[in-house]
Amino acid sequence: MDSFTFQNPTKIIFGKGTIPQIGAEAKTYGTKGMLVYGRSSIKKSGVFDTVKKSCAGAGVKIVEFGGVRPNPVLSHTRKGIQLAKKEKVQFILGVGGGSVVDCSKAIAAGAKARGNVWDFFTGKAKMKDALPVLAVLTLPATSSEMNDATVITDDEETKQKIGFRDPALYPKVSILDPTTTYTVPLQYTAYAAVDVISHLIEGYFTCKDPWTPVQDRFTEGQVRTIIECYERIAKNPEDWQGRSTFMWAATIAWNGLVVAGVGAYGVPMHMLEHPLSALYDIAHGAGLAVVIPAWLSWAAKKDPSKMAQFAEAVFDIRSGSTAKKAAKGIAALKGWFNKIGSPTSFKAANIPGSDIPRIADNARELALVWGMKDYTKAVIEELYRLCL
Amino acid sequence: MDSFTFQNPTKIIFGKGTIPQIGAEAKTYGTKGMLVYGRSSIKKSGVFDTVKKSCAGAGVKIVEFGGVRPNPVLSHTRKGIQLAKKEKVQFILGVGGGSVVDCSKAIAAGAKARGNVWDFFTGKAKMKDALPVLAVLTLPATSSEMNDATVITDDEETKQKIGFRDPALYPKVSILDPTTTYTVPLQYTAYAAVDVISHLIEGYFTCKDPWTPVQDRFTEGQVRTIIECYERIAKNPEDWQGRSTFMWAATIAWNGLVVAGVGAYGVPMHMLEHPLSALYDIAHGAGLAVVIPAWLSWAAKKDPSKMAQFAEAVFDIRSGSTAKKAAKGIAALKGWFNKIGSPTSFKAANIPGSDIPRIADNARELALVWGMKDYTKAVIEELYRLCL
Repeated sequence: MDSFTFQNPTKIIFGKGTIPQIGAEAKTYGTKGMLVYGRSSIKKSGVFDTVKKSCAGAGVKIVEFGGVRPNPVLSHTRKGIQLAKKEKVQFILGVGGGSVVDCSKAIAAGAKARGNVWDFFTGKAKMKDALPVLAVLTLPATSSEMNDATVITDDEETKQKIGFRDPALYPKVSILDPTTTYTVPLQYTAYAAVDVISHLIEGYFTCKDPWTPVQDRFTEGQVRTIIECYERIAKNPEDWQGRSTFMWAATIAWNGLVVAGVGAYGVPMHMLEHPLSALYDIAHGAGLAVVIPAWLSWAAKKDPSKMAQFAEAVFDIRSGSTAKKAAKGIAALKGWFNKIGSPTSFKAANIPGSDIPRIADNARELALVWGMKDYTKAVIEELYRLCL
Repeated sequence: MDSFTFQNPTKIIFGKGTIPQIGAEAKTYGTKGMLVYGRSSIKKSGVFDTVKKSCAGAGVKIVEFGGVRPNPVLSHTRKGIQLAKKEKVQFILGVGGGSVVDCSKAIAAGAKARGNVWDFFTGKAKMKDALPVLAVLTLPATSSEMNDATVITDDEETKQKIGFRDPALYPKVSILDPTTTYTVPLQYTAYAAVDVISHLIEGYFTCKDPWTPVQDRFTEGQVRTIIECYERIAKNPEDWQGRSTFMWAATIAWNGLVVAGVGAYGVPMHMLEHPLSALYDIAHGAGLAVVIPAWLSWAAKKDPSKMAQFAEAVFDIRSGSTAKKAAKGIAALKGWFNKIGSPTSFKAANIPGSDIPRIADNARELALVWGMKDYTKAVIEELYRLCL
């Protein structure tokens, strides 16, 4: 265990039929807010109307801002910021998945800033304040509904996909109704599962502390749970237990708890993935399924012990040498990614191997922004070659 | 999974040398506060002086209120409330273990109330507001440093030991420096371990939901971790890993997370224990070690499946029938309690069996306050007889 500060003030309202509570919750933060959303799915499902009706009932005016796409982009975020400023909204309410919540946070930050919101992402400027963010989640994966992070892709210039954190970005309230996820297509659920697993394992595999059983067992247990949830959902998309447990497990996978006390850690899998979804606009979870097995193999070559521990705890792999157990564990995880239809190679994800230098340049920029200097361009290229 | 609302806003500052941060944190809540503490141990250790110096440096005046004992009592709490009102303090800072933090919360609640603070415990009145509570923890066990509960014993009249909860009782800030626990005697650490385990298993064994893997694995993993930490501490009281991991595991064992989503649950082990520490002034953890094996045996007779799951996950008991595994698991836990010097029977705790009717009356009162009506006096007496 290492020193840390932990504070996560987000109020979670979880359960079937909870969305009509949003109006009363929003009212606490003002009488005019901006409803940020993606495409038509929340209109089809009725969530959009439920939210608007609840807000109207509470006397809260709503300015609509739709069109957030997966891997949300800077140019669209800027439009949201303009609108938020023009309409003088008092809070931002994201209704959708992690991309919508991330975009809502970026708008909330930009709406209180004079300068360029992108400077917060690159670290050129420090965010000072943000509008309150609220969320109604309909696609669990990123934990954005219960953390202080936002990830946006610069579609204007650099093609960088970068995240930044600030305590003011914790949503004040997030409403999670698992029944809204019944209609999430199975492939999206699979990508979400990969994303959640990635959040659980970044700190697990990169921290230097030799004894972190609180965090290790949390990770190992939650990875098993996510796999079990997916299997239930694959059999029955409306399985309450699978959907509700997936939703909560996803939320607490990256809300700060799993890395509290592990000391310094890196996020190499996210660093390697961001360029893939930024440059090729693939799903974040798909990109992660490509890079995770490669990074794990690379890391296990140096020291297979943690991977062997993971293999035993998650896949019940108990026999063989440490190196053998590690190899079997990586194969098991990669096999499961394949089984659920996630690509595990550049080839499967339709990413040309000849692009590696360009992708590595993008990743190297991110490695520098995120303080992972050891990931030189040569190391990053080596890692991408393992993805071929 | 079931519906729930979860919000835990406590800021945790964890690590070696963190106590001097208390002045700056306290300053946020006012310039005059009451320092609540127990006996001389924090003076001997230097924590008392560190806290006072830090507060003085931040321009925060401190009114001292010492003398909180384990199983804190109402009469002493009332004195603290009087002093807090008289001195018009703006916050309450508890420095010590769970008893001190619990007493601080009760004082914080009483200082803002006109009526009888005990009415909040019995449910006769609803708390409306409380002074901000801060904590510097030196003995981890109760999670009071990161939850909204307080437990006090009525030493004036009823001899009832009752807890109540209110969101305003979450400490604003809790500072946890594991090195302050290096001098905690091993027997206290053992009782603390039993207490932490009790917090982890109440919801686990009493919830009706058939599928709660997020919460189950959290419980199972943390119980294993607590046992491992104790073993490290028994070998070396200044083992950083053992002490720090114990401290954090204890804090998150009863901060709301482990029961979020399990639906309705009871706290029968605490209901059975409170009369023991209230009437015989034994350590709470010692009383728990007496009642836990008895309650588990009683519950496993009705349905051994969850106990068998626990036995496998915590003690690697994999062979035999479900009932057999459950029995082995209970024996393993009871054996461990004995090994660490905790009493596991009335006899070992010097509680006369002839007192059972009187103890059961006390427990029954508590069962009614806490909404566990099924625990009739007859059932409670049966359970206590299993403790003989």
